[in-house]
Amino acid sequence: MQIGIVGLGRMGANIGRRLMRAGHQVVGYDASPQAVAALEEASGAASLEDLVAKLAAPRAIWVMLPSGHITEESISTLGGLLSKGDIVIDGGNTFFKDDIRRAAALKEKGIAYVDVGTSGGVWGLERGYCMMIGGDKPVVDHLDPIFKALAPGAGDIGKTPNRESADPRVIEGYMHAGPPGAGHFVKMVHNGIEYGLMQAYAEGFDIIQGRASDRLPEEERFDINLADVAEVWRRGSVVASWLLDLTAIALAKSPKLEEFSGKVDDSGEGRWTVNAAVDEAVAAPVITAALFARFRSRIGNSFGEKLLSAMRKEFGGHVESQGAKK
Amino acid sequence: MQIGIVGLGRMGANIGRRLMRAGHQVVGYDASPQAVAALEEASGAASLEDLVAKLAAPRAIWVMLPSGHITEESISTLGGLLSKGDIVIDGGNTFFKDDIRRAAALKEKGIAYVDVGTSGGVWGLERGYCMMIGGDKPVVDHLDPIFKALAPGAGDIGKTPNRESADPRVIEGYMHAGPPGAGHFVKMVHNGIEYGLMQAYAEGFDIIQGRASDRLPEEERFDINLADVAEVWRRGSVVASWLLDLTAIALAKSPKLEEFSGKVDDSGEGRWTVNAAVDEAVAAPVITAALFARFRSRIGNSFGEKLLSAMRKEFGGHVESQGAKK
Amino acid sequence: MQIGIVGLGRMGANIGRRLMRAGHQVVGYDASPQAVAALEEASGAASLEDLVAKLAAPRAIWVMLPSGHITEESISTLGGLLSKGDIVIDGGNTFFKDDIRRAAALKEKGIAYVDVGTSGGVWGLERGYCMMIGGDKPVVDHLDPIFKALAPGAGDIGKTPNRESADPRVIEGYMHAGPPGAGHFVKMVHNGIEYGLMQAYAEGFDIIQGRASDRLPEEERFDINLADVAEVWRRGSVVASWLLDLTAIALAKSPKLEEFSGKVDDSGEGRWTVNAAVDEAVAAPVITAALFARFRSRIGNSFGEKLLSAMRKEFGGHVESQGAKK
Amino acid sequence: MQIGIVGLGRMGANIGRRLMRAGHQVVGYDASPQAVAALEEASGAASLEDLVAKLAAPRAIWVMLPSGHITEESISTLGGLLSKGDIVIDGGNTFFKDDIRRAAALKEKGIAYVDVGTSGGVWGLERGYCMMIGGDKPVVDHLDPIFKALAPGAGDIGKTPNRESADPRVIEGYMHAGPPGAGHFVKMVHNGIEYGLMQAYAEGFDIIQGRASDRLPEEERFDINLADVAEVWRRGSVVASWLLDLTAIALAKSPKLEEFSGKVDDSGEGRWTVNAAVDEAVAAPVITAALFARFRSRIGNSFGEKLLSAMRKEFGGHVESQGAKK
Repeated sequence: MQIGIVGLGRMGANIGRRLMRAGHQVVGYDASPQAVAALEEASGAASLEDLVAKLAAPRAIWVMLPSGHITEESISTLGGLLSKGDIVIDGGNTFFKDDIRRAAALKEKGIAYVDVGTSGGVWGLERGYCMMIGGDKPVVDHLDPIFKALAPGAGDIGKTPNRESADPRVIEGYMHAGPPGAGHFVKMVHNGIEYGLMQAYAEGFDIIQGRASDRLPEEERFDINLADVAEVWRRGSVVASWLLDLTAIALAKSPKLEEFSGKVDDSGEGRWTVNAAVDEAVAAPVITAALFARFRSRIGNSFGEKLLSAMRKEFGGHVESQGAKK
Repeated sequence: MQIGIVGLGRMGANIGRRLMRAGHQVVGYDASPQAVAALEEASGAASLEDLVAKLAAPRAIWVMLPSGHITEESISTLGGLLSKGDIVIDGGNTFFKDDIRRAAALKEKGIAYVDVGTSGGVWGLERGYCMMIGGDKPVVDHLDPIFKALAPGAGDIGKTPNRESADPRVIEGYMHAGPPGAGHFVKMVHNGIEYGLMQAYAEGFDIIQGRASDRLPEEERFDINLADVAEVWRRGSVVASWLLDLTAIALAKSPKLEEFSGKVDDSGEGRWTVNAAVDEAVAAPVITAALFARFRSRIGNSFGEKLLSAMRKEFGGHVESQGAKK
Repeated sequence: MQIGIVGLGRMGANIGRRLMRAGHQVVGYDASPQAVAALEEASGAASLEDLVAKLAAPRAIWVMLPSGHITEESISTLGGLLSKGDIVIDGGNTFFKDDIRRAAALKEKGIAYVDVGTSGGVWGLERGYCMMIGGDKPVVDHLDPIFKALAPGAGDIGKTPNRESADPRVIEGYMHAGPPGAGHFVKMVHNGIEYGLMQAYAEGFDIIQGRASDRLPEEERFDINLADVAEVWRRGSVVASWLLDLTAIALAKSPKLEEFSGKVDDSGEGRWTVNAAVDEAVAAPVITAALFARFRSRIGNSFGEKLLSAMRKEFGGHVESQGAKK
Repeated sequence: MQIGIVGLGRMGANIGRRLMRAGHQVVGYDASPQAVAALEEASGAASLEDLVAKLAAPRAIWVMLPSGHITEESISTLGGLLSKGDIVIDGGNTFFKDDIRRAAALKEKGIAYVDVGTSGGVWGLERGYCMMIGGDKPVVDHLDPIFKALAPGAGDIGKTPNRESADPRVIEGYMHAGPPGAGHFVKMVHNGIEYGLMQAYAEGFDIIQGRASDRLPEEERFDINLADVAEVWRRGSVVASWLLDLTAIALAKSPKLEEFSGKVDDSGEGRWTVNAAVDEAVAAPVITAALFARFRSRIGNSFGEKLLSAMRKEFGGHVESQGAKK
C-alpha cells in the first residue's frame, strides 16, 4: 500500500527502506531536501502540503520525528491538511497522554490517530521492528500490511507454549495494545524496563571490576576478564539477553571502555515511566534507581553532596575526603 | 574420565546424567539411598568413605549440595578422606570467601579445590550448564573434559566479533574466572544481576497492569494483554532475554498469575552481592532494591511501617488508611 | 486586620482562632453551617458571595481546603466575585504549577494570589505555623500582620550565627520564598524531606526490632527497648528531631504499635516532589524510596511480586515461600 | 571514681575533660606523649602497662580509638595486662559482632567488657554525650557515675508522656541497651538513620536549588534563598531537627557551599547497618540509598556508567552526552 513518511532521519529512512523492500510505495518528506533525496527509490515531497497532495485518499502518514515540539507541530499541521478518513501514525517516542489528547482532537475532524512504539534501533532495518500499537481496531487492521512488513516476523524465535488461540500478529512481532496512547504507553514501559536491565548489568560488572581494587584485602581480590564473563553468560545462563549480547560486543571491542566518559543520557521515557508509576501508586524502585543513576552520572558533584559534607563538618569537624578513599 | 558426585538432588542427578551421556564414568553418593538408586547407570556409593574407595587416584569429586552447613561438613569430611593430588569441586552456591578459606585449608594437604558457579537450573540437563570456574589453572585444565561435557557448547548462539584471540572455552559456555573463589564470585554477581533483571520486568508489568485501575481518570486507563506484551517484546525489542521468554511462558499459562502469592524467596547470593558491593564501596541501587523487594514481599506490614503510621498520627492526627487508597 | 477564611476544618478553624487571639477580625465560611457556628467568635458567612460581601475592600481571603478539585473550584468562584486589588490566599497543599497557572489567571483581573505552605499540623494552634509564602512582594508585605500572628515567633529556638543581615521574618518562622508557586514549592519539598526522615527512622527501628528474631544466631540477637532508644536519642544525639520526639511519644504509649496496621497514606506532596526531581534531573533516591515504601505498604502482594515467583518457578522449579522464611 | 582513658584524640580528650569537671580522676594514655601532656589535669601514663599499674583494682579503662585494627590490638593487649574484675570499655565505633567476640574472650579471664556507642561529636564536651551501652548489668551499674557525668542530663528537653515508670537514666541521655554488643548495635543503627536523615535534607535542598535551572521553562523556575529555607524550617515545621540546625549554620556561613567538593566519606557504621538489615531480611531502602550516594560521590564516573554508554552506543548508535544535558 501507499504511505507517507515525515522525518527521514536514521529511523524514518530505514522504515521507508524496509517498507519499499516489501513492495510498499513510500512518499517521503523531510525538512532537509538531502534527506529526501537520500531515500532514492521513494517519491519525495517538498512540503507537508506536497506530501498530502501526492498521496491518494484515504491517506496514511507515518510521522517519525524526535519527540516533543517538532512532532507536535507537524501533527498539528497535518491535522489541518488531511481529510476525513485519513490516518496519522506517530511512530516516535511520544508521551502517551499527548497521544490521547491528539487522538481526541483529530477524531473531531474524522482523522484517525495511531501511535506506534517502535523498538529495534539501528538493528531494525535488517532485524525488523518490534511494534506496540495504539489505535482504533479498524484503523489498525487497515494498516496491517504496513506493520507486517516492518515487523521481524516469527523467524526462528521459539514458540511459547499455550499461545495457540492468541493473536497471531504478536508472534510476528507487533501488537495492537489498545486505544490511542496504549502503544506508546507499552513502549514507554519497555524503555523503563530497559533502563532497569541495563543498570542491573552495569552494577554487576562494576562489582566484578571493583573486586580487583587494591583497597580490598589481598586474598579477597580477583582480577577477572570482563569480556569473558559477558560472553560466557550469553551461553546457557539465566541472565542471557540481547542487551548482554551487546555488552559482550562492547567489551570485546574495548575491555576497559576507556573511550567512554560514563555520562549517560536519558531520553524521556524513563522519566515518564517513573511518573506513571507514581500516578498509579505502584512502587518502581529499580526503574527509578536506574533513572537516577543516569541523572547522577551527568554531573560532577551535586549541591546535595556538598551539603552532606557541610553537615559532617558542623557536627563532627570532619574534613572532606579527597575522593580517593574507598 | 571418572568423577564422584556427592548430592544427587535435581541438580546433582542431572549433572551426573549429562556427564554419563558424554561417556564419563560417574560414582554417585547421596544421604538418601533412593536418590543413589535413581541414578541408574551410575555406580553408587554407600558413604563418603565408600565413594572415595571406589574412585581411582587422582580423584575428582563434585559436591552438589545446598549451600551452607551440609556442604561445609561434607567438604570437611572429604578433606580427611582424600589424598594428595585429589580434587574437590564445589558446584553449589557457596559464598566466595568460604571457598578462599577452604581452598587454603585443603591446599595444606595437597588437595585441590575448585569452585564452579553453575547456571542453568532445571533446563541444564538439555541445554547444558553455563559454568564460572575458580581454581588453579592446571587443575581446571585437568578437569576440562568434565566441564566441556556439562557446558552447552557453542550451539547456534551467534559469535561476538573481535573475540578471535580469546579463550575458546568461553564460547562453549564455561570460563576459568580465576583462583579459588573466583568462580562462585562471578556466579554470585550473576545472581545479583538476575535479581535486578527480574525486578525490572516485574515493575514494568506491574505498571502496565496498574494502568487498568479504576482510580485513574477514565481516559487515561488501558487494559492491556500482558501475555501479548511479553510475547511481542521477545521479538526484536531491546528487552528480549531468556527471563522474558520465561515470563511469556508463565503469562501464557496464567494471565493473572492468580495461583501465586507473591512471596518471593531469596537464596543468599543476592545478599552476598550487596555485601560485596558495600565492601567495595560500589553503589548497587538496583540490585539492592531488587533484594529489598523480596524481603518486603514476604511479610505483612513491617514494624517500620507501623511506626510511620504512628508518627503521622502524632503530628497530623492522621488515621490510618484501610489499604484501599491508591 | 480583617480576613476571610474559606474552609473551617481542623486546620482552617485553628488558623482562625490563632488570628483572632492576635486581634484580627475573621469572617469564616464553610460548606457545613455547623463548622461556621463552631468558630464562635468569628463572623460567619452563608456562602462565598456572602463572605465577599462581608469583607471590606481590599479583601483578603484565606482558602484552607483539601487540595484538589474543591480548592480549584472555590478559587475559581472567588475569581468571579472579587475585585481588583483583592487577594486570594491558598493555604492548603496545592501543586505549585497550579499556583502559577491560577496566579496568572487572577492577575488578569487585578486580583493577587498568594500561596502559603503551612507546616505545623495539629500542633500549630499552640506552637504557631511555619509558613513558606509565594506571591508578589507588595502583597506579601501587606499581609505581614496575618503571617506574623500565625507564625510561631522566634521563641527560645537558638539563633543561627551569621544571619544578622538576613530577613528578620524568617527568624519568626515565616518566609517569602518567591513569586506565586514558590511557597507551595518549598512546602512540597519540605514534605518530601519529611517522608525521607520518617522512613529513615522507620528503617532504623525496624532493624533494631528485627535483631530479636529467632532466625538469627542466638549470640547475635538483642531484644532492645525501642521506647528507650527513641528517648535516649532525643538527648544529645545527632538524630534528635521533632519527628523523633513524636516517635518517642508514640512508643511510650504503645511499645509494639500493635494498634497500627502499617498501611501508610501519602498526601500528594511526596509524589509531586519526585516528579519535580525528575523534571529537574536531580536524583532523589531517598525521598523516592520513602514514597514507594508507602505505596507498597498499602497492598497485599503486588502483581510484580507474583511475576517474580512465576519466573522463579519457570527457571528453577522453585515453589513459593509461605512467607515465613527470613 | 578513677578511670583510665586510652586514646586522647579529640573525642578521648574531651571525654576526659568532662569526667574531670565532674570530679572523676582520669589517667590518660596515648601513643603521642604530646596528647597525654595536653590533657593537663589528668595523670599521664607512658604505656598501657604503666596505665594499668597506675590504676587501682578493680580497674576501668575507656578505650577511645579509631575503629578497626588499633582498637582491636589495644584491647587484646589490655586483656593480657588486666586482672579478674577489671573492666574494658570500648567507647569507639566497633562493629557489634566484634564486641560479642571480644566480650566472650575477656570473660574467660574474668574481665568485663562494656561497649559504649557515643554520639555528640565535637559538641559533646559542652552538651554531653548521648550514650548507648552494652554490657552485663552489674558492670554497667558499677560504671553509672561515669556515664552520668558524661551524659547531657535531662536539661530542658521536654518530658515524653507515659514514661513515668521507665528507666530514669534514659532521661539523662544514656541507656543500657543490653548485653555486650548491644550498645554499639544501637549506635550503628543511629548512624545509619543519620545517613538517611542527612540524605533526605540533601535531596530536598538539591531539588530547591535545581528549580533555578535555566533548563526548566522560565515560568516554572524559582531562585530561592536556601539559608532562609533552612532557617524557617527550624521554626515550627515538621522537619525541624538538630541536623537542620547545623544545615542552617552551614548555609548561613556559605550559601553556595562553594568550598566543598561534595565527596562524602562514610565511616563504616552505614555499611554495617546495611549488612545488619540484609542479615535480618529487613528492607532498608533509604539507609542504603544514602550510603550508596556517598560511595557514588567519591568517584568521577563508574565503570558501570561507562558500560551503560557502551550499551546505548551498540543498540542505538547513541553518542555520549558531554554532561551538560539535564
